Amino acid sequence: MRNPLLAPELRELLSKNDVTTIQDFCRFMHPKAVADFLATLSPKEIWRILRSLEPSLRAEIFSNFDEDVQLDIAETLSRDELAQLISDMPPDDRVDLFKRFPPEKQDLILPALAKAEREDLRKLASYPEGTAGAVMTSDYVALPPDITVREALERIRLEAPDKETIYYAYVVDEKRRLIGLVSLKDLILAPPHKLVRDVMHKDVIFARVTDDQEDVARMIQKYDLLALPIVNGDNVLVGIITHDDAVDVITQENTEDIEKFTAIGGPHEAGVYMKLSTLEYFRKRAPWVIGLAGLELFSGMIIRHFEDVLNQFLILAFYMPMMTATGGNTGSQSAIMVIRALALREISLKDFLKVIFKEFKVSLLLALVLGLLLWFKITYFTSGAEVPSGFSLSTVGLAIGLAFATQVIVASLLGGVLPLLAAALKLDPAIVSGPTLSTLMDIMGMLVYFSICKIVLGI
Amino acid sequence: MRNPLLAPELRELLSKNDVTTIQDFCRFMHPKAVADFLATLSPKEIWRILRSLEPSLRAEIFSNFDEDVQLDIAETLSRDELAQLISDMPPDDRVDLFKRFPPEKQDLILPALAKAEREDLRKLASYPEGTAGAVMTSDYVALPPDITVREALERIRLEAPDKETIYYAYVVDEKRRLIGLVSLKDLILAPPHKLVRDVMHKDVIFARVTDDQEDVARMIQKYDLLALPIVNGDNVLVGIITHDDAVDVITQENTEDIEKFTAIGGPHEAGVYMKLSTLEYFRKRAPWVIGLAGLELFSGMIIRHFEDVLNQFLILAFYMPMMTATGGNTGSQSAIMVIRALALREISLKDFLKVIFKEFKVSLLLALVLGLLLWFKITYFTSGAEVPSGFSLSTVGLAIGLAFATQVIVASLLGGVLPLLAAALKLDPAIVSGPTLSTLMDIMGMLVYFSICKIVLGI
Repeated sequence: MRNPLLAPELRELLSKNDVTTIQDFCRFMHPKAVADFLATLSPKEIWRILRSLEPSLRAEIFSNFDEDVQLDIAETLSRDELAQLISDMPPDDRVDLFKRFPPEKQDLILPALAKAEREDLRKLASYPEGTAGAVMTSDYVALPPDITVREALERIRLEAPDKETIYYAYVVDEKRRLIGLVSLKDLILAPPHKLVRDVMHKDVIFARVTDDQEDVARMIQKYDLLALPIVNGDNVLVGIITHDDAVDVITQENTEDIEKFTAIGGPHEAGVYMKLSTLEYFRKRAPWVIGLAGLELFSGMIIRHFEDVLNQFLILAFYMPMMTATGGNTGSQSAIMVIRALALREISLKDFLKVIFKEFKVSLLLALVLGLLLWFKITYFTSGAEVPSGFSLSTVGLAIGLAFATQVIVASLLGGVLPLLAAALKLDPAIVSGPTLSTLMDIMGMLVYFSICKIVLGI
Repeated sequence: MRNPLLAPELRELLSKNDVTTIQDFCRFMHPKAVADFLATLSPKEIWRILRSLEPSLRAEIFSNFDEDVQLDIAETLSRDELAQLISDMPPDDRVDLFKRFPPEKQDLILPALAKAEREDLRKLASYPEGTAGAVMTSDYVALPPDITVREALERIRLEAPDKETIYYAYVVDEKRRLIGLVSLKDLILAPPHKLVRDVMHKDVIFARVTDDQEDVARMIQKYDLLALPIVNGDNVLVGIITHDDAVDVITQENTEDIEKFTAIGGPHEAGVYMKLSTLEYFRKRAPWVIGLAGLELFSGMIIRHFEDVLNQFLILAFYMPMMTATGGNTGSQSAIMVIRALALREISLKDFLKVIFKEFKVSLLLALVLGLLLWFKITYFTSGAEVPSGFSLSTVGLAIGLAFATQVIVASLLGGVLPLLAAALKLDPAIVSGPTLSTLMDIMGMLVYFSICKIVLGI
């Protein structure tokens, strides 16, 4: 059982340099918990502890540090220590770290690795970020089809210490093309003398190295898989993506989507808020805050264009924030529903017309309700004489209500269609959401508002 | 290999009533793929196919349908057929379906189940939604500590056909209290004569039935677990949550968060956009669109209060949309960063002061840059005489720039603090985000804008 009281005790052990007890602690706790705990120490102190452990545990704990901490520790190591550590790491974690080294350091490390590892590292590092290839690991169990279940179990037992998962084994032909899958459960339940070929699942769910990482993660989620095999263009098995990496991809993509909804720039790993320096944080936020404020100059230009209308009917100014807010809200609602449905692979581009129709129907209802409410409020609950003589409050209410209704419909349609357009252009649908969309709606809203009021009021 | 060309062929088989080939298809494909495919048929047709399959496969495919489809199929079954089907389902899927039956139907089904299943169902159904208890399954392998590894493997082999996962086995004492964990990998690699007690991990990561489902899902993600054991108040093992359910919880919570950011009401399962009727969709959206528009009446009241200022300086109206947009954008950025950091368990309530300080520093920089830019734009790039005599454009620029700077700081601080306050009140931090926050910022913004302009311009 987890005992949080261990923490202060361990701190004391560190100061006493009691290596044996610290080793026991590292072996007893989950490697991630050990990493979290050790992360409070300096890189040199961490390495003193890690060095005293057996290589496999050392690499496992090391892999569980954040990449920044990994880099800091790597800085303190000699070339040979680092090469050894990298060799012991799981291939997917190893390549993530390797990619963050500066080129000189990469060139220094590569020759110090064994040939097989060097080639594996080069290969994995060659896949572009965001693809299945960049997330997969080369650490999986592959079996030929013509051995028996007993032989297969024996092979798995032998390979188990080095493999990330042994619960799925992939069956490949003599050219390493993927032809089947057996789970350890299948093997345990099958008669030992049967051939792997006869117990394997032939309908293997797989993805390609070039597939989008989010698509692949969603497949793992959809089919409740422990791992998904990844093949190249010739159907040759080149790696697997495990369930734990899939959930990290999903979290990362969610964080990016959410930050796009609120216009915070750059790609992001999860969990960085407290670590961002003020300047980094400023750089993430400033372009959007200032850029979008700049765009709002257009809404200013539109208002100025209708200066005369506003001068005569100052009451229009009172409803301006409501107008921009309503346009932004309805547009964002539509956009978010469509973006989320796209992200969860619930709809695709071919549903274009269905989305337009769905958004049109709901916006018509919203427009009707909101327009009527506003007309009613302005006609019956406006005190005082804010309108020039010759105009009734009811006419002004009609103008404003009609303008709001139009804006609700326009905003819903645009909100629904723009993410689909972005997707059609192979852009991330989330870019047309949140503040970007709101700003567009503000500009559109001021145009709709003053144009319609001008027409209805006949000025 | 997956062959999409099967689809039209299967359609033909259905019309020809070729049951054997359809059975082969159901056995060959992944149960989720079969369910997706069959979902296009009517409930009666689906049941005709499912009935012809062996009970375990039938229940597995059935569990992979959306709950709505499950309910539709259940409608067409006799009491005994339904009771049998429910008995064959995994306990966690079974309880999800059971909870959606009307009480009469629940009362009808329960007596038709075997006693053990009835009690299991009642027990699982008793945990409140959103807790670990409501997500967990009671289908796990438990071992006593004092059997050998060989005996443990034999037990797992015997239990394997009925268990959701056999890759983790939980070690319990005579009172079923959780005392250890062995993975199937550990058992395969351990000497067969050793005792389970001596090979098990004693530092088991676990959660309690009453824990929040998102906390538990995040633990599974953090420690890369296949499953997490769930104990009651007496440390008795009562269930496990598997990795695939954890990723579904994470997705569901993300969807809810995202919808809250854009003010779409109600709790949601993933993947519902296309299924929502226009009226349901309207009901999700209308309260927010209309409610928030209603709140904007306050910003209207504030503008009206400053009618004289606006009448004299109509130029102020040109910058109103920019003002509301900037307040909303900066406030949302701060809120989103804090909400996401809270959701990923990166910060907690005790970081209150750190968050305030961090937001203050970055907003000071943003305010400085934005205020100066605006002052510059208004002073040097405003054509024509929009200001009354006796006032210079530079003074107006100073007033507007200062108002924007103040709003940026206020919005950042509020955006950072409100989610923490919500969390302190045990509310979901995401409720103070997106449109709700923007509306608050609009009202606040108009107040700041006109007050500061009035003071600086001395009118």
